[in-house]
Amino acid sequence: MDRALAERLFGRLREASFDGVGISRESYGAGESLALDIVEEEARALGLETARDAGANLVITLAGLDPSLPAAACGSHLDSVPQGGNFDGAAGVVAGLMALARFRAEGFRPARPIRLMALRGEESAWFGRAYMGSSALFGRLSREDLATPHVVTGRPLAESMREVGVEIDRVARGEALLDPASLACWLELHIEQGPVLIARNLPVAVVTGIRGNIRHRAVECIGEAGHSGAIPRWLRHDSVFATAELITRLDRHWRTLLERGRDLVVTSGIVGTDPAEHALARIPGRLRFSMEARSQSLEVLEAFYDLFLSECAGIAEERGVEFRFDRRLDTAPARMDEGLIGRLRAGLRAMGQPDEPVPSGAGHDAAVFSGAGVPSAMIFVRNQHGSHNPQEAMEMDDFLVGAELLARTLREIAA
Amino acid sequence: MDRALAERLFGRLREASFDGVGISRESYGAGESLALDIVEEEARALGLETARDAGANLVITLAGLDPSLPAAACGSHLDSVPQGGNFDGAAGVVAGLMALARFRAEGFRPARPIRLMALRGEESAWFGRAYMGSSALFGRLSREDLATPHVVTGRPLAESMREVGVEIDRVARGEALLDPASLACWLELHIEQGPVLIARNLPVAVVTGIRGNIRHRAVECIGEAGHSGAIPRWLRHDSVFATAELITRLDRHWRTLLERGRDLVVTSGIVGTDPAEHALARIPGRLRFSMEARSQSLEVLEAFYDLFLSECAGIAEERGVEFRFDRRLDTAPARMDEGLIGRLRAGLRAMGQPDEPVPSGAGHDAAVFSGAGVPSAMIFVRNQHGSHNPQEAMEMDDFLVGAELLARTLREIAA
Repeated sequence: MDRALAERLFGRLREASFDGVGISRESYGAGESLALDIVEEEARALGLETARDAGANLVITLAGLDPSLPAAACGSHLDSVPQGGNFDGAAGVVAGLMALARFRAEGFRPARPIRLMALRGEESAWFGRAYMGSSALFGRLSREDLATPHVVTGRPLAESMREVGVEIDRVARGEALLDPASLACWLELHIEQGPVLIARNLPVAVVTGIRGNIRHRAVECIGEAGHSGAIPRWLRHDSVFATAELITRLDRHWRTLLERGRDLVVTSGIVGTDPAEHALARIPGRLRFSMEARSQSLEVLEAFYDLFLSECAGIAEERGVEFRFDRRLDTAPARMDEGLIGRLRAGLRAMGQPDEPVPSGAGHDAAVFSGAGVPSAMIFVRNQHGSHNPQEAMEMDDFLVGAELLARTLREIAA
Repeated sequence: MDRALAERLFGRLREASFDGVGISRESYGAGESLALDIVEEEARALGLETARDAGANLVITLAGLDPSLPAAACGSHLDSVPQGGNFDGAAGVVAGLMALARFRAEGFRPARPIRLMALRGEESAWFGRAYMGSSALFGRLSREDLATPHVVTGRPLAESMREVGVEIDRVARGEALLDPASLACWLELHIEQGPVLIARNLPVAVVTGIRGNIRHRAVECIGEAGHSGAIPRWLRHDSVFATAELITRLDRHWRTLLERGRDLVVTSGIVGTDPAEHALARIPGRLRFSMEARSQSLEVLEAFYDLFLSECAGIAEERGVEFRFDRRLDTAPARMDEGLIGRLRAGLRAMGQPDEPVPSGAGHDAAVFSGAGVPSAMIFVRNQHGSHNPQEAMEMDDFLVGAELLARTLREIAA
């Protein structure tokens, strides 16, 4: 693989979108457009065919012997969060371009077209909606989504999309801009946004699935406030002790499910007594907390949610408190294609690399492609410090392993 | 006992200090002074001798045959919190006046003087400092205390005290205004501020001791923030799960100590993740919480505090988090006099009442008298809805049982 090409591309992208702190490539904004232009320019210099699709994404194609065959597609997104990192998204586009560059240099003529898509609008940081680019392609942006205001300027998403060339009327009608049947696969290389590959000492890994979730933004535990000195334990209805016990019991269930090989993460990210009434010497009468469970398995999510409700009911009964729930929010897990997972793992083994699979905890465009019926899979590349911050750090050697795996697999599928 | 006197006095006090919502008798302010005046007027009408002491408290005396003997003293405070209830404090003064009225009516001539003290400045709501009246009497108000600003007006406590006639220079010098040896006892009747008497169906109870406490205003649990989907359980350092486990373990220790007959209450009244960085889909990196243990036993407090520290250390080790502690704050428990407790319990039995003792979770002037070396004891009267609010509700029948017990015991001690 052409390491120099990767280094030059990452360098140009960084330079074009450095904001003084990190990288800013606004969804359907100037930074993102500039990144598409840079990649397109490099692709053309390599003699590759480029175009913009009806969703204003950049599409780079290596022609196939039979243009009527569904294409072997790869790619990722080119936008970033504000003050983010250079690799989240872009790595998948750069890896795809390296693969096409090699095929072109080697004179490889695949049976089916090989297509690299540099997508727009994946990050939710700008409009509060994620996967806008891929969702638009498959007719999955609602009018409500299109009206979503920019978090800073308040301008609706539709205006920003129209400005960069999206065929917004078709999107608004819910029309698919891309026929899922025109793609044989979607392969997305992405930096890992968690620490698992580092902890397990894996340069790259194949993603088994993208976790879905069940969430409550705010559960309220309602007990009874009172003097902290004057009320003995048996007469208390303490919302903090009740919720602490709830979380501790859920932690125990979580451990048990993990021991049984189930995929699950559980988080209560927002917790607080009410500043309007709490005090050092007052039994807390109210505690609000968020609750989120994520898993690749819908069955595990539902089973854990049942445990959550049943523990709430048990503790409410035992401690004389009440748990009040806001609306439950659901995101279904996304399945990665078993055949593609097998191919990718076999590719890793052939390269002399460990082929341990990992789940994806964060969402990705691949989930949207999969949801639209395109067989999809992902390659994670080891990355320090998580993502969405300027400290994200992918080693070039790891990236090259991932890009090599992507190229091998595309070649196999397209041959 | 003269029920009509009690009803008239409570009525006059209520009328004079109703603020539209509840009762406001500001410490060293107009409402408190008016309350002292009302009680003094009633006492004079009953032919009792009244005076104001160097702390500007009202002192009502039934002369003894030997004026050189230490007096049998009783009383409580006449101030209230803003929008508080009519009985918190005043009940002890009214009960004392009923006792003296009866002795006077019966022509009882005790050996030692019997003294009712209607104290000022017990509530911390006005200056952030509690027990100001009794502390001043025993030279226990520091210059810092005297400079404490009024929570609304900002005027220093010393100015308000001087205005109502306190000999402020003596107080500022830390001079005792009252010789503890001049009192044979301090008996304080007070409404219970917790729900124990109601739950146990006791009209009155004898207080075994006043709980001290060990507190931290803010303990911080520091873990590591991160993407809630992308970080598996074994790589998490979740401050909320760690603290939930801590509280659950402390709850278990608490239950064990109670089962062994130890006195303890534990409260974490203020709990919260950091609004500047918390999010639904973010592992919480920081959680702040307050921690308070109260007990009548210094030994239990220290033992529980050791358990607290050792559980923090264990969880920190297991979960890779850190607990950071602000300054530990201590208030020593106050002992009630065993002899007086015995007399009061015997009195209850003689009256055909149950004599179950209860601890006091809230602080009282009796703790200051006890700390100064005056043998002290308290009588709690059953009361609904806690205190410091307009809903506090003491039944007159219960109050009369308490007042009867007070009178009996004063008569015994003074005879």
